[in-house]
Amino acid sequence: MFSINTLTSHVLCHMPLYITRMRTNHFGMADSGWPGCAKSLKGVILDLCGVLYDSGEGDGVAIPGSIEAVKKLKESDLQLRFCTNETQATREKFVAKLRRLGFDISVSEVFPPAPAAIAVLKERGLRPHLLVHDGLLPEFDGVDKTNPNCVIVGDAAENFSYQNLNEAFRVLIGLEKPVLFSLGQGRYYKETDGLKLDVGVYMKALEYACDLKAEVIGKPSPTFFRSVLNDMGLKPHEVLMIGDDLLNDVGGAQHCGMKGVQVRTGKYRNCISAELGSFEAS
Amino acid sequence: MFSINTLTSHVLCHMPLYITRMRTNHFGMADSGWPGCAKSLKGVILDLCGVLYDSGEGDGVAIPGSIEAVKKLKESDLQLRFCTNETQATREKFVAKLRRLGFDISVSEVFPPAPAAIAVLKERGLRPHLLVHDGLLPEFDGVDKTNPNCVIVGDAAENFSYQNLNEAFRVLIGLEKPVLFSLGQGRYYKETDGLKLDVGVYMKALEYACDLKAEVIGKPSPTFFRSVLNDMGLKPHEVLMIGDDLLNDVGGAQHCGMKGVQVRTGKYRNCISAELGSFEAS
Repeated sequence: MFSINTLTSHVLCHMPLYITRMRTNHFGMADSGWPGCAKSLKGVILDLCGVLYDSGEGDGVAIPGSIEAVKKLKESDLQLRFCTNETQATREKFVAKLRRLGFDISVSEVFPPAPAAIAVLKERGLRPHLLVHDGLLPEFDGVDKTNPNCVIVGDAAENFSYQNLNEAFRVLIGLEKPVLFSLGQGRYYKETDGLKLDVGVYMKALEYACDLKAEVIGKPSPTFFRSVLNDMGLKPHEVLMIGDDLLNDVGGAQHCGMKGVQVRTGKYRNCISAELGSFEAS
Repeated sequence: MFSINTLTSHVLCHMPLYITRMRTNHFGMADSGWPGCAKSLKGVILDLCGVLYDSGEGDGVAIPGSIEAVKKLKESDLQLRFCTNETQATREKFVAKLRRLGFDISVSEVFPPAPAAIAVLKERGLRPHLLVHDGLLPEFDGVDKTNPNCVIVGDAAENFSYQNLNEAFRVLIGLEKPVLFSLGQGRYYKETDGLKLDVGVYMKALEYACDLKAEVIGKPSPTFFRSVLNDMGLKPHEVLMIGDDLLNDVGGAQHCGMKGVQVRTGKYRNCISAELGSFEAS
């Protein structure tokens, strides 16, 4: 299995060889531009679920070698951030879980969509109706939710009942100018007991019901990636994004000018990635 | 309110005048071809929910004048059929409800998607996983559902839980060649207590999750309309379709060569139809 740990070793120990190999043999998608990256790599952004751990019952489980990989990256000269579309818990609770799993990660290093969404609400004077996981609600404690003039949909999981989706639909269809924010647009993710539908599926459902286009906050939104780059003080070509999702992690990063690599853990499925191109461990 | 009753009176009592008015003043969508229809109209297909009745608690309620309209049409020389995307009950139970509401309708006159779907399953040797309303399950009693190799989604309403949608997703994503049938593709419908999300919304959700295109059985599928025309022994240009849904009733019928008229009951909303054109009562 090609994991974050094998990839980290490649990046840190055999950079020139690794870059050459990816360019010539294994990684079709990121072909052009890799020589530039080899000279200038200054930071790494890691996806979390599917790269460092698999979610599921309780805290989920760390992917073998991933705790060590984070440790090695932190000991290197590279800057490190964690970019996630996790919206089932507040940032604090989410980081506490990661620390219980054994990762040396702090709140300020982690970028999830909810705080970015709250900034957008403030900027545009919007009051949300929330269709999100119970665990995320405290994040919106200070936000005015009376007489809502937009809807925010997150990975609500069991809260995606017919009644709740219908309620969000009725708010949207009742607005003169309906605004739908989606905290990510993932199709599905992997938990320890199997694949689970992600927020993007319900975003599409509401888009179709109301004949509108949602505004995505989170990966693969370039605005979202740029806020992380801004925090690192680095330029896109200086940063490598590593994730298990070809569209939201790898594609989103590439669209933003960064390099993107897909690991073969998490939601990675051979039949899909084979068509689109993914990194092949040598 | 422009209802089935006012429309029926127009059609039956003032056909030449009515046709002329629609063509010249009021009905942009069906402009070309109406003179031909005026000479040759031999049959009418009616949508049910939103045209004859509003669904809701218990049996729902008949729309004022609609019982009389059906009576008048039956007494005329026109052939009459009922074409519905109703999938919350078996055809027998559905017709029994309509009869309790006061309509003179028999099972053989009503065309819902489920029997058409069962015919397709037999033809192609498919075994379905069902994501449908409990009330529809008996319709599939004789169908082999072991080791499913396709998914059928209907208007499952409260059965559209996260767990059930996830289960349907897992069946599809596990198939080598995933096949998804959707019994209709409606966005929403009106019940007595408000608008409700329809099957199309969940069809879109599964399409996005699995990156596939569903096969729609029911309106606006031309195959579905043709099966009704076939039963009437009429050609498309001889038949008028009346519904409250611009895309699935009016658009579907027009796509098939029939004439289509939208009533201003049911899910009709002024702001949407104003853009697309709808019949204006004089």
